[in-house]
Amino acid sequence: MATQRILDFLATRRPNGPCLVVDLDVVRDNFRAFEKALPDSKIYYAVKANPAPEILRLLAAMGSSFDTASVAEVEMAMDAGAPADRISFGNTIKKERDIARAYQLGIRLYAVDCVEEVEKIARVAPGSRVFCRVLTDGEGAEWPLSRKFGCVPAMAVDVLRHAKNLGLDAYGVSFHVGSQQTDLSAWDRALGDAKKVFATLAEEGIVLKMVNMGGGFPTRYLKDVPAAQAYGQAIFSALRKHFGNALPETIIEPGRGMVGNAGVIKSEVVLISKKADNDNVRWVFLDIGKFGGLAETMDEAIRYPIVTPRDGSETAPCVLAGPTCDSADVLYEKTPYPLPLSLTIGDEVLIEGTGAYTTTYSAVAFNGFEPLRSYVI
Amino acid sequence: MATQRILDFLATRRPNGPCLVVDLDVVRDNFRAFEKALPDSKIYYAVKANPAPEILRLLAAMGSSFDTASVAEVEMAMDAGAPADRISFGNTIKKERDIARAYQLGIRLYAVDCVEEVEKIARVAPGSRVFCRVLTDGEGAEWPLSRKFGCVPAMAVDVLRHAKNLGLDAYGVSFHVGSQQTDLSAWDRALGDAKKVFATLAEEGIVLKMVNMGGGFPTRYLKDVPAAQAYGQAIFSALRKHFGNALPETIIEPGRGMVGNAGVIKSEVVLISKKADNDNVRWVFLDIGKFGGLAETMDEAIRYPIVTPRDGSETAPCVLAGPTCDSADVLYEKTPYPLPLSLTIGDEVLIEGTGAYTTTYSAVAFNGFEPLRSYVI
Repeated sequence: MATQRILDFLATRRPNGPCLVVDLDVVRDNFRAFEKALPDSKIYYAVKANPAPEILRLLAAMGSSFDTASVAEVEMAMDAGAPADRISFGNTIKKERDIARAYQLGIRLYAVDCVEEVEKIARVAPGSRVFCRVLTDGEGAEWPLSRKFGCVPAMAVDVLRHAKNLGLDAYGVSFHVGSQQTDLSAWDRALGDAKKVFATLAEEGIVLKMVNMGGGFPTRYLKDVPAAQAYGQAIFSALRKHFGNALPETIIEPGRGMVGNAGVIKSEVVLISKKADNDNVRWVFLDIGKFGGLAETMDEAIRYPIVTPRDGSETAPCVLAGPTCDSADVLYEKTPYPLPLSLTIGDEVLIEGTGAYTTTYSAVAFNGFEPLRSYVI
Repeated sequence: MATQRILDFLATRRPNGPCLVVDLDVVRDNFRAFEKALPDSKIYYAVKANPAPEILRLLAAMGSSFDTASVAEVEMAMDAGAPADRISFGNTIKKERDIARAYQLGIRLYAVDCVEEVEKIARVAPGSRVFCRVLTDGEGAEWPLSRKFGCVPAMAVDVLRHAKNLGLDAYGVSFHVGSQQTDLSAWDRALGDAKKVFATLAEEGIVLKMVNMGGGFPTRYLKDVPAAQAYGQAIFSALRKHFGNALPETIIEPGRGMVGNAGVIKSEVVLISKKADNDNVRWVFLDIGKFGGLAETMDEAIRYPIVTPRDGSETAPCVLAGPTCDSADVLYEKTPYPLPLSLTIGDEVLIEGTGAYTTTYSAVAFNGFEPLRSYVI
C-alpha cells in the first residue's frame, strides 16, 4: 500500500523522525470508487478521519460533502471550499453555543439521538433538518461502536416527532454499523430498523426523506476486505428489500474507507531487546506508539501491515511497543507480531494503512515527543 | 482537592471550554512532604507527569532533580533552571542520536535495561553513569507497568558488567513498583531484588552505588491512600533490611505523587440522555474525554473524584463519556458513576486529582477539539 509516489517522497526528502505520508491519488481513486459503487448516495467524508487541508480541498473540488464533529471541523470544510449546504454537523453531542455558531455559518443539517439535543437545535438553529441516529448492534466490526451514539428505534420515533413539533424538519434516520465493518449483512439489519421508523412516523403524517448510512467501510489492513463494489451491491439490495420503490435519499460517511489506505507512516526501530536471556519473544521498540498516532492499536484492535527492509528473511514473533515511558504504550503484545530476525536498530519500517485516525489522535507532547508530522503529496 | 485558590481563579477568570488549573502551593507542599518522608533520597521529578514550565521552575528552585523521557524534556528541565547534573535521562528506549544530544547538553546519567542500549551509550556518551532497570511484578498498582521496561535481575548483572567493560560507570539499579502503588510491601520485594544485583556484582569487584526507587507514589483519587510518611518509613525499613548499614544512595521519581492532587479540570455537561425510555442508566456527556486529556480512564483504571454544583441531592448511576464522535471515548461505563439526578446540561463540574498525566496526553485536534488548556497559578 506504500505507493511509488510515497516511496519516492521518503527516499528523496528523508524526513527525520516518524511521519505520515498521504498519497492524494489514492484518495481520489477511493472517492471515485464510492461514487461508482453507490451512485445514488451522497458522500459525506468524515473529516475526523484525517482533516489535512489538502485532503479536504481535493474532496471539496470533487464534489464531496462533509460530515463534521465540531465547529472547528465545520470551519475546516468551509475553508477547503465546501459550501454550507454540503456540510452535516454529525456529532450527536453538541454544546448549544456550538450549534448556534454552526447555524450562523449556514449549517442546516444536524444529528440528534435524544429530545434534549432536539430542543437545543430548535432554540438556536430553527427550521433545520435533523436526523436521528438509531442504535445498531455493531456485530462484525473490528472497532465496535458500543451504545454511545444513537437510541433504540422506538425512541427515535419520539425524538423525530418532537423535532417536528418544535418546527424542525424531521429529515431522516442515521445509523453506523461499526467501523471497519466487514459483514455486509450489517447494513441490511440496520436498514430494516430505519424503515420501521419511517413507517411508524408515516402513519402520523410525518414523512422522513433521508437515510444516513454512516461509515464503517473498511480499509485493508492485514486481512482482505470486500471491495466498495460489494458494499454498494449489498446496500442497494437491502434498500430495495426494505423500501421497495420508495427509495429514500441516502448519505454515506466514509472516513477510514476514504483515506486509510492512502497513508503510510515511516518509523524507525529504536531498540530490539529481551527481558531475560531465555525469552523467546523479542521486544521491538519503534519511534511511534500509542500516544504518537497509533491509538487505534488500543486492545490490539487494528493490526497494521508493517514493511521492513529485511522482509523475505526468517521471522519470529515480537512484542511491538512505542518509545514513551508509559507501560500502556505497547502496540501488539497479546498477539505478537512476526518480524524478521535480522531486523536491526536503526532500520526504517513502513506502517501501512495509516491514513485515517492517526495524526489527530496524536498526543500534543507526551514524554516531550512532538505530534506526528504529516505530508500530503 | 479543589483549593480555594483554584476555586477563586475559576470564579474570577471564567475560562471558556475545558481546562486544567494547577495550584503551585500544593506542588510545593508535596515536594516538602517527600523531602521530609525520605530525607536521604534525592527527588527526581518525573517531568512527563506535567511539564508545565511554572511547575518545573518551582521545583528547580526548591532543589529538585528531574527524570526525563526525551531530549525535549531534558531541555525543558534546563530551561527551568536545573543544571545538567540534576537531570537523569530515564527512558530505557533512546535513539543513539538523542543520547548524543543529551550528552552534549551535559547529561551523564542514563537508564538502560539491555546490552544494546549500553552499547549506544558507550559509543556516544562515554564514561557516563548508567543504572539498569529491573523488572518488578507491579502487584497492587492501579496502573501496572507490564514488562515493557526492565529486565530480570540475572540479566541486569550482565548488562551492568557489560557497561563496566565498555568504560561506563555501572552506577546502580532502578525499579518501578507500578504507578499509584498502594501496597507498601512492593518496595520491599523490589529492594530485595536490587540487593541481589548489588551482591552478585560486588563479588566481581563491581561496586554499585545507587538504587533508583522510581515513582509509584499515589495521589488520592476516590480511595484513601497511605501518606508520604508511611511510604518513607516502609522504604527505609526495607532498605535497612536488605542493605544493612551499607545503605546505597537512593533516588525517587515522583510524578503523580508530586502534581496529581495539585490540579483540577473544569468541565461542562454537554448532554444528559438515555438510549431508551426504560433505561435505568443515564448517559452524561462532558466536554472533555479520553482524547482531551483523560486518557488514564483507559480500562476505567483511574477513577477521578467529580464535584458538581448539585452535590448533596439524590444520585443515580451514570455512564460518563466524552464529546467526540468516537465510541471509545467513554470514561466510566462498566462501573457507572453516581451523579446527582438534578444534574443539568450546562452545569460545570470539577474533575479532581487531574494535575498529572492529563495535558500532555491530550490529542492535538481529535474531532477538531483543541488540546486541554492549562493554567498554573
